[in-house]
Amino acid sequence: MRYRKVPDETIRRLPIYLRGLLSSSEQGRRSISSRDLADFIGVNPWQIRKDFSYFGGFGTPGVGYEVKKLVKQIEKILKLNVLQKSTLVGVGNLGSAVLAYPGFTMYGFEIAAAFDNDPKKVGKKIGDITIEDAANLRALKRRNIKLAIIAVPRDAAQQTADALVEAGITGMLNFSPCYITVPKKVKVITIDIAMDLARLPYYMPVG
Amino acid sequence: MRYRKVPDETIRRLPIYLRGLLSSSEQGRRSISSRDLADFIGVNPWQIRKDFSYFGGFGTPGVGYEVKKLVKQIEKILKLNVLQKSTLVGVGNLGSAVLAYPGFTMYGFEIAAAFDNDPKKVGKKIGDITIEDAANLRALKRRNIKLAIIAVPRDAAQQTADALVEAGITGMLNFSPCYITVPKKVKVITIDIAMDLARLPYYMPVG
Repeated sequence: MRYRKVPDETIRRLPIYLRGLLSSSEQGRRSISSRDLADFIGVNPWQIRKDFSYFGGFGTPGVGYEVKKLVKQIEKILKLNVLQKSTLVGVGNLGSAVLAYPGFTMYGFEIAAAFDNDPKKVGKKIGDITIEDAANLRALKRRNIKLAIIAVPRDAAQQTADALVEAGITGMLNFSPCYITVPKKVKVITIDIAMDLARLPYYMPVG
Repeated sequence: MRYRKVPDETIRRLPIYLRGLLSSSEQGRRSISSRDLADFIGVNPWQIRKDFSYFGGFGTPGVGYEVKKLVKQIEKILKLNVLQKSTLVGVGNLGSAVLAYPGFTMYGFEIAAAFDNDPKKVGKKIGDITIEDAANLRALKRRNIKLAIIAVPRDAAQQTADALVEAGITGMLNFSPCYITVPKKVKVITIDIAMDLARLPYYMPVG
């Protein structure tokens, strides 16, 4: 199901809510009010209610949200209720951190393949994954992988993205510090790990 | 200068605009319309104008924004116009990627110190930085460093944050996959590198 007219900003916040709910669930909570959820993840309660209203609203007034039910509802909206296979391209420091990061599993992602162009890395195993030669990216086409995580150096990012489009990838998470251009049917989200630091000083006391 | 009543979401977007403007400037652009800037970074033009309106608005109708001037204005709002010294705690894969990441310099940050608790890492040099013993975090107090980047394993994150608060750190960028609790005067932004992947499937064609 695809909901219409939902702002991108709402979609951006849904994973934040999801993570908060999964943490609450881990801590044994069964229900949570929008206020408690808001406090927990650091947003406004009205924002949560407004965001949920695009999907007809969840929860019961005075009772709050059933944590597990809400998790399922958000996962369905985000299409995280089916296992999402993804590939990593670039197994340097950042790529290795991505492979080791527990968060991907939490959201229902499986990193099912990893590629690098360094002959010293190709063939090596990290966990269950054997690093493949980046020259063979087109082999992804036969493997039902539609998502890619790009963690290559800046000057290799565009050509990597081009090869991934060729291989049938339709969603990319780009960690390389540059913009990449892709056809309209492909969605790219570029992450700049420095960008979030850039809004910290605003909130800090002077001196 | 601290502007009142500016929504957190606006502050979150300012670094996105800043990055787009810095890239345009690198490409030799001197002025840019809100529409072109919007296309470039993938947001709505009205959003840009609305966000800038909190600061009295920038630019001249029909002419657009002077790129370099706007860069300076945004840097001033975000307090990035003074060199912001920061420290890294945790020099694993992710921490090493942070040290090597070119983006921090772009925003005016200097990573001036790095700490780890692994005796094999302490004393090693990465670039200009010698890794220090994480047991000595309190030494930061004398070094005019107010920002910290946390890239330690999940179960060490809270105690690291506590030690950083003791050491006078007032802003933290937390890459550890967990929430941390700090006093009100300290600002924490928690980054989940998996979270952005979680909103990709929503935008991808089915099948």
